[in-house]
Amino acid sequence: MKKVVTFGEIMGRLSPPGYGRIVQAQSLNLTFGGGEANVSAALAHLGIPAAHVTKFPDHEMGHAATSYFRKVGVDMQYVQYGGNRLGLYFTEFGAAMRPSKVVYDRADSSFAHLDPKEFNWKEILKDAQWFHWTGISPAISESAAQACKEAIKVANDLGITVSADVNYRKNLWQYGKSVQEVMPDLIAGCDIIVCGKGDAEDILNIVPDGSTKSGWESVCKQIMVKFPRIKKIINTKRGQISASQNTLSATSFNGKQVLKSETVEISQIVDRIGGGDAFMAGYIYGNLILKDEAQSLSFAVAASALKHTIEGDINLANLDEIETVMKGDLTGRLKR
Amino acid sequence: MKKVVTFGEIMGRLSPPGYGRIVQAQSLNLTFGGGEANVSAALAHLGIPAAHVTKFPDHEMGHAATSYFRKVGVDMQYVQYGGNRLGLYFTEFGAAMRPSKVVYDRADSSFAHLDPKEFNWKEILKDAQWFHWTGISPAISESAAQACKEAIKVANDLGITVSADVNYRKNLWQYGKSVQEVMPDLIAGCDIIVCGKGDAEDILNIVPDGSTKSGWESVCKQIMVKFPRIKKIINTKRGQISASQNTLSATSFNGKQVLKSETVEISQIVDRIGGGDAFMAGYIYGNLILKDEAQSLSFAVAASALKHTIEGDINLANLDEIETVMKGDLTGRLKR
Amino acid sequence: MKKVVTFGEIMGRLSPPGYGRIVQAQSLNLTFGGGEANVSAALAHLGIPAAHVTKFPDHEMGHAATSYFRKVGVDMQYVQYGGNRLGLYFTEFGAAMRPSKVVYDRADSSFAHLDPKEFNWKEILKDAQWFHWTGISPAISESAAQACKEAIKVANDLGITVSADVNYRKNLWQYGKSVQEVMPDLIAGCDIIVCGKGDAEDILNIVPDGSTKSGWESVCKQIMVKFPRIKKIINTKRGQISASQNTLSATSFNGKQVLKSETVEISQIVDRIGGGDAFMAGYIYGNLILKDEAQSLSFAVAASALKHTIEGDINLANLDEIETVMKGDLTGRLKR
Amino acid sequence: MKKVVTFGEIMGRLSPPGYGRIVQAQSLNLTFGGGEANVSAALAHLGIPAAHVTKFPDHEMGHAATSYFRKVGVDMQYVQYGGNRLGLYFTEFGAAMRPSKVVYDRADSSFAHLDPKEFNWKEILKDAQWFHWTGISPAISESAAQACKEAIKVANDLGITVSADVNYRKNLWQYGKSVQEVMPDLIAGCDIIVCGKGDAEDILNIVPDGSTKSGWESVCKQIMVKFPRIKKIINTKRGQISASQNTLSATSFNGKQVLKSETVEISQIVDRIGGGDAFMAGYIYGNLILKDEAQSLSFAVAASALKHTIEGDINLANLDEIETVMKGDLTGRLKR
Amino acid sequence: MKKVVTFGEIMGRLSPPGYGRIVQAQSLNLTFGGGEANVSAALAHLGIPAAHVTKFPDHEMGHAATSYFRKVGVDMQYVQYGGNRLGLYFTEFGAAMRPSKVVYDRADSSFAHLDPKEFNWKEILKDAQWFHWTGISPAISESAAQACKEAIKVANDLGITVSADVNYRKNLWQYGKSVQEVMPDLIAGCDIIVCGKGDAEDILNIVPDGSTKSGWESVCKQIMVKFPRIKKIINTKRGQISASQNTLSATSFNGKQVLKSETVEISQIVDRIGGGDAFMAGYIYGNLILKDEAQSLSFAVAASALKHTIEGDINLANLDEIETVMKGDLTGRLKR
Amino acid sequence: MKKVVTFGEIMGRLSPPGYGRIVQAQSLNLTFGGGEANVSAALAHLGIPAAHVTKFPDHEMGHAATSYFRKVGVDMQYVQYGGNRLGLYFTEFGAAMRPSKVVYDRADSSFAHLDPKEFNWKEILKDAQWFHWTGISPAISESAAQACKEAIKVANDLGITVSADVNYRKNLWQYGKSVQEVMPDLIAGCDIIVCGKGDAEDILNIVPDGSTKSGWESVCKQIMVKFPRIKKIINTKRGQISASQNTLSATSFNGKQVLKSETVEISQIVDRIGGGDAFMAGYIYGNLILKDEAQSLSFAVAASALKHTIEGDINLANLDEIETVMKGDLTGRLKR
Repeated sequence: MKKVVTFGEIMGRLSPPGYGRIVQAQSLNLTFGGGEANVSAALAHLGIPAAHVTKFPDHEMGHAATSYFRKVGVDMQYVQYGGNRLGLYFTEFGAAMRPSKVVYDRADSSFAHLDPKEFNWKEILKDAQWFHWTGISPAISESAAQACKEAIKVANDLGITVSADVNYRKNLWQYGKSVQEVMPDLIAGCDIIVCGKGDAEDILNIVPDGSTKSGWESVCKQIMVKFPRIKKIINTKRGQISASQNTLSATSFNGKQVLKSETVEISQIVDRIGGGDAFMAGYIYGNLILKDEAQSLSFAVAASALKHTIEGDINLANLDEIETVMKGDLTGRLKR
Repeated sequence: MKKVVTFGEIMGRLSPPGYGRIVQAQSLNLTFGGGEANVSAALAHLGIPAAHVTKFPDHEMGHAATSYFRKVGVDMQYVQYGGNRLGLYFTEFGAAMRPSKVVYDRADSSFAHLDPKEFNWKEILKDAQWFHWTGISPAISESAAQACKEAIKVANDLGITVSADVNYRKNLWQYGKSVQEVMPDLIAGCDIIVCGKGDAEDILNIVPDGSTKSGWESVCKQIMVKFPRIKKIINTKRGQISASQNTLSATSFNGKQVLKSETVEISQIVDRIGGGDAFMAGYIYGNLILKDEAQSLSFAVAASALKHTIEGDINLANLDEIETVMKGDLTGRLKR
Repeated sequence: MKKVVTFGEIMGRLSPPGYGRIVQAQSLNLTFGGGEANVSAALAHLGIPAAHVTKFPDHEMGHAATSYFRKVGVDMQYVQYGGNRLGLYFTEFGAAMRPSKVVYDRADSSFAHLDPKEFNWKEILKDAQWFHWTGISPAISESAAQACKEAIKVANDLGITVSADVNYRKNLWQYGKSVQEVMPDLIAGCDIIVCGKGDAEDILNIVPDGSTKSGWESVCKQIMVKFPRIKKIINTKRGQISASQNTLSATSFNGKQVLKSETVEISQIVDRIGGGDAFMAGYIYGNLILKDEAQSLSFAVAASALKHTIEGDINLANLDEIETVMKGDLTGRLKR
Repeated sequence: MKKVVTFGEIMGRLSPPGYGRIVQAQSLNLTFGGGEANVSAALAHLGIPAAHVTKFPDHEMGHAATSYFRKVGVDMQYVQYGGNRLGLYFTEFGAAMRPSKVVYDRADSSFAHLDPKEFNWKEILKDAQWFHWTGISPAISESAAQACKEAIKVANDLGITVSADVNYRKNLWQYGKSVQEVMPDLIAGCDIIVCGKGDAEDILNIVPDGSTKSGWESVCKQIMVKFPRIKKIINTKRGQISASQNTLSATSFNGKQVLKSETVEISQIVDRIGGGDAFMAGYIYGNLILKDEAQSLSFAVAASALKHTIEGDINLANLDEIETVMKGDLTGRLKR
Repeated sequence: MKKVVTFGEIMGRLSPPGYGRIVQAQSLNLTFGGGEANVSAALAHLGIPAAHVTKFPDHEMGHAATSYFRKVGVDMQYVQYGGNRLGLYFTEFGAAMRPSKVVYDRADSSFAHLDPKEFNWKEILKDAQWFHWTGISPAISESAAQACKEAIKVANDLGITVSADVNYRKNLWQYGKSVQEVMPDLIAGCDIIVCGKGDAEDILNIVPDGSTKSGWESVCKQIMVKFPRIKKIINTKRGQISASQNTLSATSFNGKQVLKSETVEISQIVDRIGGGDAFMAGYIYGNLILKDEAQSLSFAVAASALKHTIEGDINLANLDEIETVMKGDLTGRLKR
Repeated sequence: MKKVVTFGEIMGRLSPPGYGRIVQAQSLNLTFGGGEANVSAALAHLGIPAAHVTKFPDHEMGHAATSYFRKVGVDMQYVQYGGNRLGLYFTEFGAAMRPSKVVYDRADSSFAHLDPKEFNWKEILKDAQWFHWTGISPAISESAAQACKEAIKVANDLGITVSADVNYRKNLWQYGKSVQEVMPDLIAGCDIIVCGKGDAEDILNIVPDGSTKSGWESVCKQIMVKFPRIKKIINTKRGQISASQNTLSATSFNGKQVLKSETVEISQIVDRIGGGDAFMAGYIYGNLILKDEAQSLSFAVAASALKHTIEGDINLANLDEIETVMKGDLTGRLKR
């Protein structure tokens, strides 16, 4: 099977054990994650060949990040080494009405200072069938945006499916260009995007025009007019009951009709970080293996729900577990 | 008070901390457990003298298993040492819709290769009032089945109450004899058994005959006809809401009528392994101390429910805690 | 801002990790806490200058206790050192229907044997605006009661607000005097007290006289007649669903009318110890900063609820978290 | 084989992990130990039946202490339960020139307040061949001294060997009687004692009289004149190179000549607490099994040296390991 | 660069933290290792492409083992999955005169039951320049010996360098054939072997014939006559001062002369398991990169010495660290 | 007693447990340290009032750093909050010939971007008797150098003793000015400096002129001519035996003669980071309390040696421990 390739920053994640606060901690658990690499990792865990492209500092923290993703089976041969630091983020886990909290320390990472010429996309993508990126990369630095652009260009040339989680994070765009200047060109090269109403307005200035009952459907239609390469737009919806309990569902629009998944209740959250990336990986898995949109959406929601019970950013839910949830069985019956 | 004696395999249990998966683990928590030894341990914790009979390898892992049960107060003087290995099992703990998972690595254990002549049952049972075994032992090997048979014989001769959890595990029966060849003889020596409808069919080929509304009652009646020594048949019922939440109830049949316990909700599961053994221990405690069937059943259900909040296979719930739950108080009010 | 001063014993707290029982533990987590010092600590965490007055043994355990409270920002310069031991308590954490359990080992502590002359209250309280004590101190020893009395006297002389959680613990009163002999004099010097119906009867022999619908209101009125300095009486109410789930609300009486807070559900309890102290700290914060009784009560309940999600005795909930809960938002939405 | 019986206090031991100081600790490792119980435990580990007699509070900490010694195989059936607290001590582990440190918190323990009548020594000692006590017990309280006295009396009546480590700890004797008032009567009932020159002077007022070159030999001779039951006096000598490195040797006097062991170097100390108790256990093992004084002394020194490499108070060195060191092999060659 | 390929069993390693004994452990650290895979791992860590070939059970423990070696960068694509269990071994770490101890639980592993036909050696070795195996594999089972034989055959056909650590472990040879029946054929296909005097006698029945001063040199000469493909024989020598301190040196014979390395003192051992495998990896690295026998030997000894300071079976010493030790600098000066 | 004030950056320190490498770590221990703050902390631990001045980001990591130093008793009231990040460094601990390793990630910290106007030195230093800084601060940024300069100026005006560890770190000077441009002005305001021969050449271009036998003495004399305010120059010498074993000594020059301390062997290093800061703190303690140069030097060396046995950057050696080592007693005899 041809591989899936993802591109984006990987950060070290440092979090106190249990429900401790950082001011209480004498040790921090160390994992690594990134919105795009998490997709590769979840796919590799399910047996889909996947490679991630990024840049790390050539010291212990960069090597540890490489090892972490290599462990799950992600092909890390295209990683470049150089620059000074690995981006980091600190997380505290909440419970009941106390929210989890994330403090970023990612500025001036090796990734932010990458040189687009370091990546030979023709070589990297030559055995690929899918390329995935997110709106975080072009937000980080001009060179990261440039690398993204080049990758998409090569992917388009090679006829590889391109997907993106457009994911607008206001506080990231600091290097002088606005999201509206940069993103449309990149989105234009996509076949599938994850995009909500808010993202559409923030990034593309597109708002519901009243042509359909559902505002999101109307937004999707406008996007597809503007970006004719896009064939499917998907979106997830999280119901926030407490820091310990959420619900999850998703919708997909194929240009004609909106498909809705069932809503899955997550009755006890272990670690919600990476839930969206698990959804994306599940959706790509569905597109590659299941070939049925309703099934893909359902698989993606099940995968994302299960991610909330897994420690770390990466979805290590097994195929049989995802399939059980997909069938509506949430009983978590002991497996011997 | 005369002691309770149990016989069966004890395995080492290795599980990642928290909700971690085995592929993520850098350390595994080590406990020990076995469906019969857990009964002795729970009884010893409640102050009932209890001895467990088994076979361990004569190396660090066997010694650690002995120590583990000695710690709780189980008399381990009749344990035999020899053979090569301690059976092991690996467990991952699930949450919400993600199931807990058990991987067995128990083949060729010292117990499986025991020599029935190693156990002098007349000596072992001389101060006993109760002997308990389960359907797991005769499934493991011919010699284990033989040891079981001899123990039951001696117990019957000495007028000791014999109980069994008949517990059919299909994938265990590998040594050439079938469950239906081996078990009836053993069951014939029992006074009390735990047996559900499925077990009755699998082991004894007995199915509901329509004589009573409840299929289970009809099955029980047939069993009692066939095995006249049996005075009571009991069964538990688990309601599976999620990996984190279950309900529990039990029924007992004394040849005349079915008694039903209340249903107890377990709103937050810490560790469900050994829940059935805790039930059995609670039921034996009830028979020895409470002498009232409804009370015994209620005590057993309360004990089993509390086990789900205790780490490890052994029920370390205290007497006052069981009595509180038995009275229907599930509020878990802080005790100073 | 002038400081808040608290006075009372601090104990070492030793508890097994997770849901372990003490008989299972190979290590115990070590924190420190006391019903009065927890109030200072929670206030210091919110930026209110706070000093705690107590006595510790002059060895590693006393020094560790000082360090622990210094870490949160409590001014520990008035702590006296001497005597033999730090009071301790052991805690096991329950789940579902299994209660948490506290075993005290606090007799003969350095605090119990303090010499009232060691504390120069004029010096200690000279920059203070608030003095808080609880009914635990006068219960511990005659000298502790005496020190309390002297502190209240000086506070009254200096026009400092005095608050007390009257908190009757029957098993503490062992030194020969009864609660009814000792407490009234101390309560007479208070401006604000936390007092429930039970406390009023036990400590002051005051019971509802039928003059108002609410028994508690009638009790409050009688207290205020007897102790004219008291301007406000407050009380909290805990709904006990399980060891993992509680509800919380509070009432305040200002001599004229009873004010009731909303009821907050705590859907997943991490550590409930210190919940009452967090309430008191929140209420003092409200009195100092918010200056509105309804807001103060609401702030106090929110603070107390959040404490249940924090490990250790001290409320480390942040101001923005308390304010969010105060507004009725219990969703615990992730903060980036 | 007839059992060895020991009598004395068991304390909980709380120590920071690694080389941490108590002021740095967020958790303390919990073990249990006592100068006499450690002897029983080391013997049980070597397969010698051993029972320990003591008193514990009837709560979690007492039960945990019972479990701890039961785990190693010590018969704890004669333990009495009652009183308020378990004695504790806190330890920090030093390295290089930094000393390890012990802070005691043992006053007013259940053991100190035992009632001598609680122990039926005729019953306890009926199957025993050896009774061991130390100078710590009579130092703790009058009732503990009394219990000691009664045990020795019964042991003498039954012809059981009595040994004691006379072990004078000045700061323990607080209850009004002096060591010189109490100890001679108890020593008079001993067959074997551990006693150095300093102890002899402090406890018995016996100093070298110049009759032999070795002052200790002269002291021993005088002791044996005064206490004719004593047949052997032994002593250990520790060479203190650093907190991480010690040497160890021992001498024995049988009334006629002094026997010296080799000196064993301990090149890396893991935990030196209980080293003396391991020596005593080794010496008793030698007397029971090896029946040769030189061998017994050598076994005892080897056992004690190995204890310094074992975590916790109890010597868990295996028989083959002791025998290897006894033969002078300190290379610690890997065993497969 | 062409890859190095290794073949052999990988076991799970379970060991108590610190210097704990297994009977004391509540958790065991989990790593994975095997005498051949450790060579691949150390080479991969130094940047040499390396692939390991083995068989694992297709469950969590097998997947965890794959992940573990993938993390270090070993190519695990040729691993076969099937069979029932992963071989395990339990280790306790000694200190001073207390030896480390290994208890094996490796019988009936998936590797032992491999089918030689599962491995397509032409495919596996097509891009390789070196194949390494050890005497452990042919000792495990006939099928493992057969797989070894086939791999060597293909390697010889392809002109790939073949090395072996002949490593005779008496207690492993249980399947009916003797080492002397099986090994000569395999050794005949080797270019380089690690072989000591004892191994030569046990495996090949070759003893010193007095032709040279050094018995080992004479043995080597005889081996080379018998097995003309062998170009170099190497051997290591461990000086055993204590469990915490060793020395290390090595010799090499090229048919003409014996080359001796310096002796390196390891003054503080962290984990000595895998020291020999680290030597082998260092020697292969030397042969591939340094191309000078004296340098290779020196590099191998330095690598092996450093391994003793690394936790786990795999040598994670960095290139610059090895080079520093190789130059004789053992000061361990802090690197910033 | 008037306080000691220190100024400089504090970093978070993240290190794997034990001897683990970062690529192996699943958690990192979190402590905080800085070359100047460590001096304040060690002094506060010895009872000398000490305040540290720095700048932290106003988020969890900054608050945790404040808490960490507050815990030891350092007055942190002058800390400014703002900017984006806390500088970090990652450390691995070596053993034997494997070096410990430090990876810095400190660029663009809140401290580097401080505004000199934020610190009101007249206010900060008004109750101080000593101000200490190091050559690290002026190396970090122009504004940090400026703040240093202003602090020294005010200290000089107020007649406060000024000390500095001139400590040249080549790779820190990145902001455009050279060490030789910046440092002389700052050194001119010092009364006491720590300065070796290498530092003198790098920073001041001063080399031995042959006027005295000792090159360092000659350098010191030239420094004192150039900077007449300097009354004492001190220096430490580390003997590097291995990563686990060092020796330590120091010299002091008062303008007339060189004083040498004894050499202390550190036979087992636990954590050597902060050893130099512990020396400085010890020397300041000596100057304030002992008032004798030889004693001060000896105290400083003893303190520094003991620091090597303490986990974390801060010297938590107790006064009695330092005094024992100062007397030449390195035996580390157990303290009860």
